[in-house]
This record gives sequence, structure tokens and C-alpha cells, in this order.
Amino acid sequence: MKNGKIQDQEPIGTKMKDLIILKIGGSVITDKFSKIPKVNHENLKKISEEIASVYNKEKMSLVIIHGAGSYGHVIVKETGIGKGIKTNNQLKAFAETQRLQNELNSIVTKYFIDAGLPAIPCQASSFVVMDSGRVEEMNLSAIKGLLELKMIPVLYGVPAFDKTQKCSILSGDQIAPYLAVKLNAKKIIHATNVDGVFTEDPNKNPNAKLIPEINSKNISQVKEWLTGSTAIDVTGGMFGKVSELLEIGIESQIVSALTLGNIVRAFNGEKIGTIIKL
Amino acid sequence: MKNGKIQDQEPIGTKMKDLIILKIGGSVITDKFSKIPKVNHENLKKISEEIASVYNKEKMSLVIIHGAGSYGHVIVKETGIGKGIKTNNQLKAFAETQRLQNELNSIVTKYFIDAGLPAIPCQASSFVVMDSGRVEEMNLSAIKGLLELKMIPVLYGVPAFDKTQKCSILSGDQIAPYLAVKLNAKKIIHATNVDGVFTEDPNKNPNAKLIPEINSKNISQVKEWLTGSTAIDVTGGMFGKVSELLEIGIESQIVSALTLGNIVRAFNGEKIGTIIKL
Repeated sequence: MKNGKIQDQEPIGTKMKDLIILKIGGSVITDKFSKIPKVNHENLKKISEEIASVYNKEKMSLVIIHGAGSYGHVIVKETGIGKGIKTNNQLKAFAETQRLQNELNSIVTKYFIDAGLPAIPCQASSFVVMDSGRVEEMNLSAIKGLLELKMIPVLYGVPAFDKTQKCSILSGDQIAPYLAVKLNAKKIIHATNVDGVFTEDPNKNPNAKLIPEINSKNISQVKEWLTGSTAIDVTGGMFGKVSELLEIGIESQIVSALTLGNIVRAFNGEKIGTIIKL
Repeated sequence: MKNGKIQDQEPIGTKMKDLIILKIGGSVITDKFSKIPKVNHENLKKISEEIASVYNKEKMSLVIIHGAGSYGHVIVKETGIGKGIKTNNQLKAFAETQRLQNELNSIVTKYFIDAGLPAIPCQASSFVVMDSGRVEEMNLSAIKGLLELKMIPVLYGVPAFDKTQKCSILSGDQIAPYLAVKLNAKKIIHATNVDGVFTEDPNKNPNAKLIPEINSKNISQVKEWLTGSTAIDVTGGMFGKVSELLEIGIESQIVSALTLGNIVRAFNGEKIGTIIKL
């Protein structure tokens, strides 16, 4: 800053050593199994207050990303838009899917703002170009600016323009590590509806064990667990989440947001859930 | 297109000779004088059906931009965020103003989609950097891609990051000519709540005359009318609108959306309202 003007030349990323990326699962903020879009207001209120209690804009930067849950998965599965666009009806479904995500995000950010957070919606599909399901181009100038102002950009999973298949789904799980790398984040916290990564499906096998840390020593073993047949059901989105996180070299932590206080503990560096440290 | 893949090298803009930018005033789609956000559902339904009746995706590209009306003006005036940010409460007001615009846009695009249009929300503040109230940087890759797919990007007035004053208002009236130039549009149509540009305030002076065309021959005279003291009240946003349109060298037309059929007539090139041709 110079004369109150933010200088273009400043490498904004270098100021964000304490940037935290908080991804909140769609299964936490919506009823993921509902066939119609349905918000979990109780969870949203609790989580908003928890984040507000620990967020200190003088000491950290924060980006929040949330999933779609029942606002996204049903319509995407029914219309097949995530695999590409072939019909006019799919074009309309692409538009309606985006509209629904904005509707959800509007509800989510209202909870955040009401809890006292300067949480501002950011629709990623307005500024992203995908190629075969992966981000090819994502202009972050506006988001960097909002972070400079000590606001909290709130992104969310969206259907996006894809050069090859016309439309693909840019999930929150892909946005989180992408932003973490580009914005030089200190840490990614995944607030999910499970306690972390397990050796097996804890619902099916009472001997399943939580893996407290994934690191270079046990990574091969964990990959086997996560891709092993007994584990497929467990992981649900967990294999995808961990795969995205493994490669970026930024500490990540997967915790359950359903236990009150876990988000605060993760912010404070407590070793709960599963920590991914490579 | 080659093998179903949109080539990066193709100058997308050159394909859009028939791109029309349709700006719909906030005073048309909301009750602009309401102190709380209030949609004008009747107007929205009529306008959506009118656009759907004339839109032919094989013959034209279309971008729609809408204003904020009672979703924006009250909160912006009350909190002063359009002139910059000085307090924490203003940061939250910035966030809440954006959230409200997304809420309005969600309602607006629902009408469009229900009318059969592949109308997809695009939040400009996610990808724009302003400087002293003017657009400095606006990455249009995603919007160009969506237009390639024959979708209709729907933008809207938003509060945005500003390098100098932290926040400024990027109005629909500024977005329209900016996009028209960058995307090589054929025409801008302003669908407002007045019949066009008048020599004086028609509500105050029954002798006020509609100016059917503004061109290089009468431009000086029109500028006098629009800045003259008797005209200031009339024009409301009209002086701003015309000023933005005058400089870009793309045909613009200002019509009243309150008369059924006017949007269709403007699309079809009928000489109604005021045409700006420089």
C-alpha cells in the first residue's frame, strides 16, 4: 500500500503466508441424499458461528469453498452435463445448474455474513476455462484484490465452460488445491461429514482405523487402502479429495465438521482427523 | 471448431458479428422505489417471453445485462460503499450487496430459463479489477466460451474490487458498452422504463420531444439538452447511459420495455425509441 493505493506491482501472493483454504463439503451444508435441493440450516448456522469465532482478519487470510450436495449432484447426474453437452436441453440444464449453485451460495454466504464475516460470493465459472475436466485458465486478479481488502471470497462447485467437452464440473475439491497453489496458501482444511481417512469403511468394519497422518513414509500403503476394493465404498469422495491433495505439497487436514469445535481445532493446528503432509 | 474441440487460436470475437447486448434496466425488473428489495415479477415474465420469442441462437449471439433497482441502490446509498471502503461494516456491506445481486440474478435467470433461454449467470465482480470506478481488467475467456456454446451470459451491476478506492460500483450501464467493444457486438439495446431520450422532461413539459436519432449532426445539441438544468431530472440515469454509448461507435437503441413488443421491434431493427448512431 502506498498513499492508500494498492500497487499493481506488489506480488500479492507473498503476503498471504497465512492464507487458509477452508473447503466445506456439500454433504455438510445440504441434505446430500435429498432428491430436491435442501439446505441443512442447522449445520450452516453452527459452522458459520464456529468460523466467525476463530477468524481473525489481522492474522490470516481465508478463502471458503463449499460443495453442492443436493443442489448439484441430482441435476448433474440426471442431465449428464458433467460429461459434455450434446442437446439444447443440456444447454438449459447447464444454465439451471449454475443458477441453482448461485441460489445455494446466496443462502450459505447469508449465514456467514450474519455471523459477522465479510464473506463475498465468487462464481468461478465466470472466469474459468476448463479442458477435459481440468482447470486450464483461471484469472485470479479479482480474488487477490478481495483478499487484499481482508474479505473472504466464497467459491463453490460449478458447471463450467470446457474447451473439449463444452461443459465439465469444476468441483470444490478441485478448486481448493488449485487456489492453494496459486495463492501460496499455508494450509487446506477439508470440513467433511467423516472423521478423516480410514483404513477401511468404518461403517462396515469395526476394526477400521483412522489414519492420523499421511506422509511420504506411509503414502504407498494409504494408496492401496484407498483404492482397495473394501475401501471404495468408504471413501466416497475421499479418494478424489486425497488424490487432489497429495500432489501439491501444501499441508492439508480432513476433519469432521459435524463435531462442534473441530473447525476451530483445525484452524488452531490441533492434530485431529487426518493430516496430509508430503 | 475442429474434431469437436474449440481451438484456442480462433479469434472468437470475429464470429460474433451478430452479437446483441441487451441491457434491461433495474427499474423495469424491480420496484426501484421500494425501500426493501422487491422484484417486478409481472415485467420479468413478460420480458422473458418476449426475448424467448425473438431469440434465435443460430442467427445471433446474445448477452443480457440487468440492473439492480431496489436490490442495489438502497444498500449502496445507505452504506456509501460505491465511494470506497473505510470501515469493517462497509466490508460486510460490500459482501452483502454482492450477495443480494446474486439473489436477484437468480430470480431473473429463472424467468429466462423457464421461458426456454439457455441463460447462465455470470458474476462480473469475480473477474474484474476496477480503478477509480472504471474497469481496468476484465478477463472474458469464460464468457467467450459460453457464447461459443450458444448460451446467453447474464451479467448484472455489482460492487467490485477497486485498486484505488477498494470498492466501486460496476453498473450494468458500464458493462454494456465495455462488452460491446471487447466482443465486437453489432448493437446494444437498452430496455428501460422510458420511451427514449427526450429534449426535456416529458413529465414536466408537454412540449418535450422524443429524439429519434442521435448522430454526428445533432450530437452537440443533444449534449446541451442532456446537461441542461431542465433535463437533469428527466434523464435520471439517461445522461450516464448516453455518455457511455456515445464514444464506442456501436449502434445503440434506447426503448421502453414497458410497452409490449418493443424488445422484439428493437431486435428486428425497427426505428423506435432513440437510436444512437455515430
